[in-house]
Amino acid sequence: MTENDVQTTREQGLVDIVVRSFDGTSDARLRAIMETVVRHVHAAARELRLTEAEWDAMIAFLTRTGEACTDTRQEFILLSDVLGLSMQVIGMNNPPCGNATEATVFGPFFVDGAPHIELGGDMAFGASGEPCWVTGSVRDTEGNPVPGARIEVWEADEDGRYDVQYSDDRTAARAHLFADGNGEFRFWGLTPTPYPIPHDGPVGEMLAAVGRSPMRASHLHFMVTAPAFRRLVTHIFVDGDEIGWKDAVFGVKESLIKSFTRHSSGPAPEGRSVSSWTDVTFDIVLAPA
Amino acid sequence: MTENDVQTTREQGLVDIVVRSFDGTSDARLRAIMETVVRHVHAAARELRLTEAEWDAMIAFLTRTGEACTDTRQEFILLSDVLGLSMQVIGMNNPPCGNATEATVFGPFFVDGAPHIELGGDMAFGASGEPCWVTGSVRDTEGNPVPGARIEVWEADEDGRYDVQYSDDRTAARAHLFADGNGEFRFWGLTPTPYPIPHDGPVGEMLAAVGRSPMRASHLHFMVTAPAFRRLVTHIFVDGDEIGWKDAVFGVKESLIKSFTRHSSGPAPEGRSVSSWTDVTFDIVLAPA
Repeated sequence: MTENDVQTTREQGLVDIVVRSFDGTSDARLRAIMETVVRHVHAAARELRLTEAEWDAMIAFLTRTGEACTDTRQEFILLSDVLGLSMQVIGMNNPPCGNATEATVFGPFFVDGAPHIELGGDMAFGASGEPCWVTGSVRDTEGNPVPGARIEVWEADEDGRYDVQYSDDRTAARAHLFADGNGEFRFWGLTPTPYPIPHDGPVGEMLAAVGRSPMRASHLHFMVTAPAFRRLVTHIFVDGDEIGWKDAVFGVKESLIKSFTRHSSGPAPEGRSVSSWTDVTFDIVLAPA
Repeated sequence: MTENDVQTTREQGLVDIVVRSFDGTSDARLRAIMETVVRHVHAAARELRLTEAEWDAMIAFLTRTGEACTDTRQEFILLSDVLGLSMQVIGMNNPPCGNATEATVFGPFFVDGAPHIELGGDMAFGASGEPCWVTGSVRDTEGNPVPGARIEVWEADEDGRYDVQYSDDRTAARAHLFADGNGEFRFWGLTPTPYPIPHDGPVGEMLAAVGRSPMRASHLHFMVTAPAFRRLVTHIFVDGDEIGWKDAVFGVKESLIKSFTRHSSGPAPEGRSVSSWTDVTFDIVLAPA
């Protein structure tokens, strides 16, 4: 054998020994996960001929990512998001089903127990931004309405901040409501605006090093649930948005881009009178559970 | 296209989009690293059909691994070690070179500035354990001695603890010495004993879940340096050790297993008299730089 052959044999031999170290794992799924992770981690290192200095840098990056995590910040989710892993997992777990609405990233800003609003109510609760009248329907893949579907909505204010990022404990720009007997819904929200993911930590440094923007395309979050249907976690995006396909977390899907129509003045729904507002329609189709 | 085809196209399309997001990376090596990491992370997730609950568990595991890191504990290095990644990187960066001594893991317990001892001196500095008389030589791949090679040695005491794990600031069971004019060396150390890697954290939980032992095979650390030679970081292991090939970090190599001969009583080298001691020989061959 040449020294190259010896090296290749040693490297593959090590992978085999590590894989076999999981032979005693009683949980078959855990064993499969460990084996697959080991094979891909070693393959990546071998393809790259990773140097010891690069390995040091990788350990340091993971350590700083860990240090950046707090009760209100999840830097590892952010890392998964910007590598497109979060979207890949969501896509695999929400396969296409007829004309069912596509899912996208959940994100770190959902809060359980958001206030209830009536149909036509305002979910802004004082958050700053241009009012947006959102209407739509919830149907099954056969076109039948899903009366009473629960709709959670949440979004950032015009400064790109969610209420959980405010310095006080205010709840704003989040609510839940229920579709009516015809599966229809309507509420006042805010016209979505682009904002950066938290980029003052290691993930932000990584994005800067590779020349990528931390900006997310403007969006409004939805989570829709109804008995016997698959839970839908998605956003709607704004047609013509400057960020669009360069979304930092790869969340944009063609079918989720919606036209927001701007109205400059005059009377608005639910008896409101505002100088500028938009409206958008989002017709939702739920897949069976 | 069937729904399966749609799904496959979507999944591969996402990988392609994420890979292309690194097109603007000015550092070609960083771009290659990001692309390779993304391809393997996505491939692993897709092969496993990773569920959202498993993704949650993975994020939680990494987060707890980050939380376990302190000034004196590096849980990500431990993770790399038990997945065999550390050994793979060492192997790639220390390819075979004639009969040069093989490298193995550096480990987290080396300390810069360990005390100097003369040839024949004792590196235990009061650490508990059976004395071990270590002799050997440092040569190049042609068999020529390497006079004055610097030899760093460090090891755990008989309770399996390194000095940095003691509650006080004592230095013990570590030293450096220099080979003589013939490239030969000799010193008193301790007969190596097996010990567990730190296993009260997430890496330890993982090992328990997969039925693997946290024990390291008994070993004595060496780092040997001399001008114009490749730095050698290695261990010697004890022939007949109960852990042996089940070493938690995959550090054992056939060529590094040495016979330790036990002597029950009588006079020992350097005028010592101990009731039980061992001796071992380690002839080191350095690769050119």
